[in-house]
Amino acid sequence: MLLITLDLLGIFAFALTGALVALRKDLDVFGLLVLAGATGLGGGFVRDVLIGATPPAALADWRYLLVPVVTGLAVALWHPVFTRMERVIGVLDAFGLALFCVTGTVKALAYGLGPLPAAMLGMVTAVGGGIVRDLLAGRVPVVLQKDLYAIPAFVGAMIVVGAYELRDLGWDLPNPAVAGVAMTVCLGWRLLAMRRGWSAPRPGGSSSSV
Amino acid sequence: MLLITLDLLGIFAFALTGALVALRKDLDVFGLLVLAGATGLGGGFVRDVLIGATPPAALADWRYLLVPVVTGLAVALWHPVFTRMERVIGVLDAFGLALFCVTGTVKALAYGLGPLPAAMLGMVTAVGGGIVRDLLAGRVPVVLQKDLYAIPAFVGAMIVVGAYELRDLGWDLPNPAVAGVAMTVCLGWRLLAMRRGWSAPRPGGSSSSV
Amino acid sequence: MLLITLDLLGIFAFALTGALVALRKDLDVFGLLVLAGATGLGGGFVRDVLIGATPPAALADWRYLLVPVVTGLAVALWHPVFTRMERVIGVLDAFGLALFCVTGTVKALAYGLGPLPAAMLGMVTAVGGGIVRDLLAGRVPVVLQKDLYAIPAFVGAMIVVGAYELRDLGWDLPNPAVAGVAMTVCLGWRLLAMRRGWSAPRPGGSSSSV
Repeated sequence: MLLITLDLLGIFAFALTGALVALRKDLDVFGLLVLAGATGLGGGFVRDVLIGATPPAALADWRYLLVPVVTGLAVALWHPVFTRMERVIGVLDAFGLALFCVTGTVKALAYGLGPLPAAMLGMVTAVGGGIVRDLLAGRVPVVLQKDLYAIPAFVGAMIVVGAYELRDLGWDLPNPAVAGVAMTVCLGWRLLAMRRGWSAPRPGGSSSSV
Repeated sequence: MLLITLDLLGIFAFALTGALVALRKDLDVFGLLVLAGATGLGGGFVRDVLIGATPPAALADWRYLLVPVVTGLAVALWHPVFTRMERVIGVLDAFGLALFCVTGTVKALAYGLGPLPAAMLGMVTAVGGGIVRDLLAGRVPVVLQKDLYAIPAFVGAMIVVGAYELRDLGWDLPNPAVAGVAMTVCLGWRLLAMRRGWSAPRPGGSSSSV
Repeated sequence: MLLITLDLLGIFAFALTGALVALRKDLDVFGLLVLAGATGLGGGFVRDVLIGATPPAALADWRYLLVPVVTGLAVALWHPVFTRMERVIGVLDAFGLALFCVTGTVKALAYGLGPLPAAMLGMVTAVGGGIVRDLLAGRVPVVLQKDLYAIPAFVGAMIVVGAYELRDLGWDLPNPAVAGVAMTVCLGWRLLAMRRGWSAPRPGGSSSSV
C-alpha cells in the first residue's frame, strides 16, 4: 500500500513537470498527455526494458497509466493554477527523484545486476523520464546541461547498493532504514541545490555554444 | 496472406513519409533509408520491445526490412515524382495508422496486457514510427503539436479492446468485423480531419513559443 | 582476453567522441559522462534490447561501464589535450566502427537472426551509439547527414554474413580471417573516406535546408 502510494505520487510529480513543459512548448492535448506519461513512466520503462522485465510494471497495472493521464488532463484544464505552483512542483519533483533512485536500484539488484550497473539503473530510473520528456519536446535534456540533479540520485542509489553489499559482510541493515537514509540524502541535497542554485561544473565552461 | 500484404502496405506508406521528411531535411541516402525504416518499423519495434516479443517480428522476416529499403531507394531515385504525390501519401499514411492501431492492439492483448495498456500500445504502434522519424530528423514530433492524428488511432484501438472485453460477457463478435469497424472509424476520422484541417485543442494555445 | 581488450578499446574511442561533443555543446560534467556512456555503449544496448539479450552485456560486466566513466572524467579534466587530438580520435572512432559492425553481426547471428537482419543489427551496433549521442546533444545525427560512415559498417557486416552463409554451403572459412577481412574493409574504407572527404550522395542535394 505505502509503496504503491509513494510510487504513484512520484509518477504524479514527474507527470506534472512533463505537462508543464508541453504547455510551454505549445503542444496540443495529445502532446501534453504523451509528455506527462513519458516523464512519469519513462525512467521505469527504460530500466525495465534494459533488465528484461517486460512488459514494464506500468503496463501491467492500469493505475500507473491512469495517474499521468488524469494529471495531464487536470493541467490541460486548469493550467493557470499549475503554472503558478512551480515551486511546489519542484519540491514534488525532488521527491520523485529521491524515491525512484531508490526503488530503481532495488529492482535492478533484484534482477541480479552488480552494484555499479544497479546504481546506474537506479539513477536512470530517476532521471530517464525527464530526458525522454526533453527529447520529445525538442530540447537538450536539462539534466545534461545544468542543475545538480542526477548526482544526488546517483549518490542515493549508491547508498542502497552499499547497504546491499554490507549485507554480504554480515551487516544486516533493515531495508526501510536504508531506503529512508538514501531518500533523505538525495532529497535534501536536491532541495539545497534548488535553493542555493548549485549546479554541476562545466568542463568547457567558458566556450560559447555551438 | 491478406494480413501480411496489408502490413507491408502500411509499412510502405509510413516509409514513404519517412523518406520525404529525409528529403526535406536534406539528409544523405543513408539518412533517407534510416528514416524510411524507422518510420515504417519503429512503432512495431517499440511495441515488441515493451511487451517482450524480441526479436521484433520485423527482424524475423526479411520482407519487413526489404519494403522500407526498396521504398527509400525509389524515393531517392525518383523523388520529384513522390514529392508531387503528397495527397496520395497522406491517404496511404492514414491507412497505415488505421491498420497498425488495430494490429498493435491485437498483439498486445495476445501478450496478456490489460485493456488500457493494450489500447495504449496499439496507439503507440500506429504513431511511434512517426515520432522516431521526427526525433531523428531533429524536429518536435508533428503528432504532439498539431493534427488530429493520435486520437483516431486511440479510438480505433479502444474499439478492438471493447470487443475483446465484450467477449468475456458472452458477446462473441467476429474478429474481421471488429477489425473492419475499428479501421473504418480511425481511417474515416483521420481523412476527415485532413480534409477539414481539424486539430486537437492546445491548452496553452495563446502563449507564444519558448 | 584479446576480444575484451578490443571491445573496451572500441568503447573508449566512441566514449571520447561523446565527451568531445558534450564539451562543444557546453554540457556539465554529468552530461559529459552520459554522452560518453551513451556513445560508447548505446549501439550495443540497442542491439541487445532488440534481440532480447537483456540485461545487455555492458550491464553485466563493470569494466564496460568503467571505461566510459574514466574516459569522460579524463576528458573533463584535460580537455585541451583531447580537443587537440581530433585526428587521432577520428582514427580510433573508425576502428570502433569496424570492430562493432563485426562483433554486432556475430552476436545477432548467434541469437538466430537471418542474414539481412543480422547485418542490419551489426551496422546498428556500430552507428547506434553516435546516433544516441547526437540526439541527446540536440543535433540531427551526423551519420544521417554527411560522411561516408554507415555504409562501410554495413559492408563489413555483410562480409561476416556472407561468410556465415558460405558455411552452409560447405565452405568453412576460419572466423578470425573473416573478421579480419571485414574489419579491414570497413576500416580502410572509412579512413579513405575521412582523408578524401567522401560523403554519401544526397538525393535532395540542391534544396536548401528547412
